[in-house]
Amino acid sequence: MNDLLSSLRAAVGAPHVLTDGDLSAWEMDWRKRVRGKALAVVRPGSTEEVAAVVRACAQAGVPLVPQGGNTGLVVGGVPDTSGREVVLSLTRLNRVRAIDGDNLTMTVDAGCVLQNLQQAAEDAGFLFPLSLAAEGSCTIGGNLATNAGGTQVVRYGNTRELCLGLEVVTARGEVWDGLSGLRKDNTGYDLRDLFIGSEGTLGVITGATMKLYPLPAATLTAWAAVPSMEAAVQLLGLAHRHLGAGLTGFEVMGQFALSLVAKHFRQLRVPFHETAPYCVLLENADQESEEHARGQFERLLEAAMDAGCVDDAVVAENIAQARQLWHVRESIPLAQAEEGLNVKHDISIPVSRIPAFCGETDALLVREIPGVRLVNFGHLGDGNLHYNVQAPEGGDMAAFLREQEERVNTLVYEQVKRFGGSISAEHGIGGLKAAKLPHYKSPVALELMRALKKALDPQDLLNPGRVLPPA
Amino acid sequence: MNDLLSSLRAAVGAPHVLTDGDLSAWEMDWRKRVRGKALAVVRPGSTEEVAAVVRACAQAGVPLVPQGGNTGLVVGGVPDTSGREVVLSLTRLNRVRAIDGDNLTMTVDAGCVLQNLQQAAEDAGFLFPLSLAAEGSCTIGGNLATNAGGTQVVRYGNTRELCLGLEVVTARGEVWDGLSGLRKDNTGYDLRDLFIGSEGTLGVITGATMKLYPLPAATLTAWAAVPSMEAAVQLLGLAHRHLGAGLTGFEVMGQFALSLVAKHFRQLRVPFHETAPYCVLLENADQESEEHARGQFERLLEAAMDAGCVDDAVVAENIAQARQLWHVRESIPLAQAEEGLNVKHDISIPVSRIPAFCGETDALLVREIPGVRLVNFGHLGDGNLHYNVQAPEGGDMAAFLREQEERVNTLVYEQVKRFGGSISAEHGIGGLKAAKLPHYKSPVALELMRALKKALDPQDLLNPGRVLPPA
Repeated sequence: MNDLLSSLRAAVGAPHVLTDGDLSAWEMDWRKRVRGKALAVVRPGSTEEVAAVVRACAQAGVPLVPQGGNTGLVVGGVPDTSGREVVLSLTRLNRVRAIDGDNLTMTVDAGCVLQNLQQAAEDAGFLFPLSLAAEGSCTIGGNLATNAGGTQVVRYGNTRELCLGLEVVTARGEVWDGLSGLRKDNTGYDLRDLFIGSEGTLGVITGATMKLYPLPAATLTAWAAVPSMEAAVQLLGLAHRHLGAGLTGFEVMGQFALSLVAKHFRQLRVPFHETAPYCVLLENADQESEEHARGQFERLLEAAMDAGCVDDAVVAENIAQARQLWHVRESIPLAQAEEGLNVKHDISIPVSRIPAFCGETDALLVREIPGVRLVNFGHLGDGNLHYNVQAPEGGDMAAFLREQEERVNTLVYEQVKRFGGSISAEHGIGGLKAAKLPHYKSPVALELMRALKKALDPQDLLNPGRVLPPA
Repeated sequence: MNDLLSSLRAAVGAPHVLTDGDLSAWEMDWRKRVRGKALAVVRPGSTEEVAAVVRACAQAGVPLVPQGGNTGLVVGGVPDTSGREVVLSLTRLNRVRAIDGDNLTMTVDAGCVLQNLQQAAEDAGFLFPLSLAAEGSCTIGGNLATNAGGTQVVRYGNTRELCLGLEVVTARGEVWDGLSGLRKDNTGYDLRDLFIGSEGTLGVITGATMKLYPLPAATLTAWAAVPSMEAAVQLLGLAHRHLGAGLTGFEVMGQFALSLVAKHFRQLRVPFHETAPYCVLLENADQESEEHARGQFERLLEAAMDAGCVDDAVVAENIAQARQLWHVRESIPLAQAEEGLNVKHDISIPVSRIPAFCGETDALLVREIPGVRLVNFGHLGDGNLHYNVQAPEGGDMAAFLREQEERVNTLVYEQVKRFGGSISAEHGIGGLKAAKLPHYKSPVALELMRALKKALDPQDLLNPGRVLPPA
């Protein structure tokens, strides 16, 4: 091990190989579920240094855990408790390498913080649309490694759809320079998309060329009370038809979820939550003008009321009001935490089947686990629900979690499977769900995945045990 | 071999195993450059039959060439001349399995003809936006296998971006059912995108779930005279800003390309070609109304004239006029053929570098090959040029092609490499460019591709020698 540490120090400089002191920032996962123990935390400052670190670890046969902002939700970026794994932190790779306005692209280091990239794009007069709760801390490399989703997917897609090229250090410590800014390139296999979403198990992403968009002239937010999940789906269809690609956000929130926000954050005004079974937050980004966007929203909401899928609605008058509405939406997880412990899910279902899924699964859970409370909200535009289950009121919540979490997961995931959905829509598999994967993925898919892992990381040194459980 | 033919007949029925008579429809490539010889043409009628055919060939160690509409441009879907390869034709798999309006998806067999899918979507009230010259004959399976591009990529992306899920028969003859209609699914490696664009070398695509979009309320077409390629790029930036996602087409056409259309198709009116160095065709699809689209186009063209990047412009008054303008654009390849032989390219370059690329490469070719004529046109919105080179006027064109094609290719491709571009933007590699690939792809990328091929097709039975040349 001393040989390895010497090699690592030679590769990145002794101050960037951390072995002592409080390493919890790298060893503890974001939701504080797991605290691992690293052999060392290594912080290379360039792609070449990353490659040297990988080569040193490969030679020593020591596994590597690539890490960005350490904001992952599935325990995919922290070391295990063995003390044998090296954490490879990418945060010192934080330069914007180039912004190419005519090509609508931005080439960046993997360790750039998402919010900084949003800002860099805006400073250059462009929009980088990836947006999610952890944007102040997460890195673009982590977003790519997990194919992060967020609030703008209905228009711009997941991180995958925003990426045109990658730079990756392979398991052998070679650098693949795939940083093309090309929108069309059919010269062989799609290596880019294989690395995206592989959660650091196939290679280490060190740089990326991302898409930019023109800044919209105006962005408006509306909030609608809908009588049912069926109505929310109907509203989504109308919104696609009326707004086209102007529709940049479509979030659904169940009544109980909103009542928790109203209860725990009394300063927030939560429209319609006392009467509406569900509320929907819509965002419309317009290339023309605020006036035009407002007219479009009005026509959409009128049509929706005529169709009976909206009971009442407000359109934010200004940016402050719009922020308040988004703030209500984003406060749901915090309000849940205030209310007590809960079981979180990140599922997706074909949009058309969501009403039936919710109806059946709500009934199932209430029947199977008396007193359970359903905090259902999410990105309906993408079929992605954070279908969370809150412990019964008043009881011992820790005991509930201990005794019921697995059962709740199983009940929900079996329903997801029945409805052709996914048990991880946007968070990934990591270490948290790896053991579950074989049950929810077809044997053929698993076999293909194992063949790919073996082909690209034959020594099983890159984030071992994450995504794919030991065979 | 007789054993294999018996197995194939048992798998798909004797009438669907063709070994005699004129098989040129399956053996000759679309551009009639190559005529191969098949051991047999096998036409399965279901996914299970495809799997049985693959298993039979795997057992016999006989290579398979998957084929859709046989409209490929890079000799990737026809057998070689050995008489040892089985053509696996997918055209009998031609059902639309389901259209899910609320989920905006359509699940289809791989052998469906693209135009039929456009129609099926429209009949259900939706848009399936993939559109390209061969749409009356090509199949969606072929589009997926080659990640086809076309004229709407600037808005909707390549075929890859339009696909949410695949059904694939693996090299072992197993069926991977990845036909999810999910927009978010982060449960493991991206198998879908690995098969897309792999040109039948990693698996056989038998079905797909594709994205649908709401039908636009109006689609308008404009034609603009621009003073230079720099001006065309500037116009593209303005069009992105003014039209946003309304911009569905942006085609550039050089003066000589348009002069060939005017010369060989005298009945066509070709606006501005006598004076403008380049013309641009723009398409604007609007969710609101024709009036709104027209207003947007007018504001864009006014701004472009003020900026000096458009000299003159017309907006089609009706659908007939719009079709005429597109017809001029689509007549360029035919006009080229009328003029005589030529060397075709399908390249992409970052949009920002296209003016410099064209300036330099035009000068280089004219200098190196006296009398050569440049037929430059393409999808500028995606950085994709069909940068074709016409034989000198009057001379022996066949001799020119024989003697100069390789040299022309090399001159152009070396320039493409210098400018960070791709030697195949939308057509693929196939058999035609496989030998060139190692020179234009990095050794690391090639090594990764070979590892993937070996992992998924260890017997090298699926379209061997295509994409990746023999090592």
